[in-house]
Amino acid sequence: MNDFNFYSPTEFVFGRGRECETGRYVKKYGGSRVLIHFGGGSAVKSGLLDKVKKSLEEEGVAYFELGGVKPNPRDTLVYEGIELCRREGIDFILAVGGGSVIDSAKGIAAGVVYEGDFWDFYCGKKVVKALPVGVVVTISAAGSEGSGDSVITKEEGMLKRATGSDALRPRFSVLDPELTMTLPAYQTACGATDIMAHVFERYFTNTKEVEITDRLCEAVLMTMLRETPRVIADPKNYDARANIMWAGMVAHNNIVGVGREQDWNSHGLEHELSGLYDCAHGAGLAVIMPAWMEFVCKHDVMRFCQMATRVFGVDMDFTDPEKTAREGIRRFRTFLHSIGMPINFAELGAKEEDIPVLVEKLGVDDGRTGGFVHLSSEDAAEIYRIAVKAEL
Amino acid sequence: MNDFNFYSPTEFVFGRGRECETGRYVKKYGGSRVLIHFGGGSAVKSGLLDKVKKSLEEEGVAYFELGGVKPNPRDTLVYEGIELCRREGIDFILAVGGGSVIDSAKGIAAGVVYEGDFWDFYCGKKVVKALPVGVVVTISAAGSEGSGDSVITKEEGMLKRATGSDALRPRFSVLDPELTMTLPAYQTACGATDIMAHVFERYFTNTKEVEITDRLCEAVLMTMLRETPRVIADPKNYDARANIMWAGMVAHNNIVGVGREQDWNSHGLEHELSGLYDCAHGAGLAVIMPAWMEFVCKHDVMRFCQMATRVFGVDMDFTDPEKTAREGIRRFRTFLHSIGMPINFAELGAKEEDIPVLVEKLGVDDGRTGGFVHLSSEDAAEIYRIAVKAEL
Repeated sequence: MNDFNFYSPTEFVFGRGRECETGRYVKKYGGSRVLIHFGGGSAVKSGLLDKVKKSLEEEGVAYFELGGVKPNPRDTLVYEGIELCRREGIDFILAVGGGSVIDSAKGIAAGVVYEGDFWDFYCGKKVVKALPVGVVVTISAAGSEGSGDSVITKEEGMLKRATGSDALRPRFSVLDPELTMTLPAYQTACGATDIMAHVFERYFTNTKEVEITDRLCEAVLMTMLRETPRVIADPKNYDARANIMWAGMVAHNNIVGVGREQDWNSHGLEHELSGLYDCAHGAGLAVIMPAWMEFVCKHDVMRFCQMATRVFGVDMDFTDPEKTAREGIRRFRTFLHSIGMPINFAELGAKEEDIPVLVEKLGVDDGRTGGFVHLSSEDAAEIYRIAVKAEL
Repeated sequence: MNDFNFYSPTEFVFGRGRECETGRYVKKYGGSRVLIHFGGGSAVKSGLLDKVKKSLEEEGVAYFELGGVKPNPRDTLVYEGIELCRREGIDFILAVGGGSVIDSAKGIAAGVVYEGDFWDFYCGKKVVKALPVGVVVTISAAGSEGSGDSVITKEEGMLKRATGSDALRPRFSVLDPELTMTLPAYQTACGATDIMAHVFERYFTNTKEVEITDRLCEAVLMTMLRETPRVIADPKNYDARANIMWAGMVAHNNIVGVGREQDWNSHGLEHELSGLYDCAHGAGLAVIMPAWMEFVCKHDVMRFCQMATRVFGVDMDFTDPEKTAREGIRRFRTFLHSIGMPINFAELGAKEEDIPVLVEKLGVDDGRTGGFVHLSSEDAAEIYRIAVKAEL
């Protein structure tokens, strides 16, 4: 096991109707002039935004609003948010939405207190301070409500880049599973895929002897295998929604990832897809992750056997371990298909002829990839090609 | 799933030699005049205390010392610590030791800033503020390094009582698995038993549909089944020590316990044993926990079947589920015996004729017990009687 620090100071406020307590938590964590940051119309139409505003008013907290966050959130809106915060003397950013809104809020929070261009943080500069961020989560997916990570897309060139720092971990996050009940099945499945990917990126490691985090990873994955089909079949199933929502946090606050080298190549490969095609991140992952697994499987067949047997219930074939390993990957892809996810380029709306562009933008030779298997540009191209022709 | 708040703001500093960074973390979390609280001679003899003091000196942090914490830490030393802190204007408590030292430090931290008798907090009063506490852990067991809990024994009458509050969660905890390598096998096994018990107290619940925390519980238990025998066989196995140490934190900061009713009756029943006989808490749990399981098994046979099959690898007997359930309990007791734990009263040094005294002190009719199965005094007596005659 590797040495590590683990710090997850977010207060999680979980359960039915708890968004009505938002104002109390904003005040508890020092907010007096708040930017409410949100996406499109659903937070407005559902009445969620009104509930949140009411709870702020009850606590005498002033607020300003900035909506319009898109999936794959853009740098342009972050700049706008930074300006607004400076102009109005805002001291707290409240994200009401899913991963895109939370990530955008983190970008603003880091940018407001930084003299330079906030994009520096997405090009390798470490965030050391930021305005406090609070969250009301509306989609189980990104896990951004419990993480210090943020992914922003530079509109010019659709360049998707990430940053991460404990300074960006939210002070509190409200998680009400009921808020996710109206999500369409497709978005629900995209979120579930993202959650599983966050675990797999940590699970595949060259670090030996990390049984505790291996087992915790498997716990989250098995939970997702059970709960996702239930919620696709019955969107109003509170308990299934609740299990997925908490699994989404556990998958990404790094409790399942400490003590080990991680990979994150699938996320990198996917970011170029959603960057280029503006597709849902989870959908892109559904196409890329099993393809990546097939490409790297031979690097550590026994680790894939462990996944196959422990998570997917495959019988170990002791005469042919690789067969077991590949059966695990096959079951993962079959699962993704069963919940309505695309499994190849055509289903995603991606094009084989764009592979050189994707590989070029990925820029794997700049040292960002590694972890389980370091990928060359040619490796990345091959994974995209596997994803082109993937079938059940 | 039940509604909940989860808040675990402790910064965990995990790995080889990291106790040398203690001073830096004390300073980071606001300590300038520190009480170093510790137990007997081992922290002195091993040189650990010197390392910690050196790291404080390097940061220019003043310190005072209070050693002498015993297993089942006493109120008398807590009073002494409170006096010392007030006299010297101490602003930070640094616990260097295991669960007893950490619990004693928490008692002091709560007491210093409270006008009344700190024992109030162990009789039901809620701790709302306390001095900040930091920890250097030397034993994997209590999980007190990541929890807001503290258990103190009132010397007069050997009354063992608990308190819990987020205000008592340590600001940081240093966990260096190497520090646990010199622990005797018996203490190591006691610690492992305590860790497993912390999980089981959460696992047995009447709350339905908590798959994510069920799976996380099982992850910790399976880790302990793998790593404990390895460390008993090879005390210097760093990775096994590391997995157990992190499992011990995960088992008790409540990440595996949220969203569900918990039980804690086994801990209550055990506290009377270690209160009366001053035996190791883990050893008492090894005697009590399987006995408690046997007594409550019929309350929810399928939950015990889940434990038996998922954790202990028992083949489900579909014609006789209770047989499966009881086989799981049998394997748990066999495991405890295999790591050198006592499994009945005689092996623990407890006496059947004391059962009325134990039941009397437990005072189960005061409403403290409940959770999975509410126990009457007669139920408690029966569990003790099962523990008297337990065999493999």
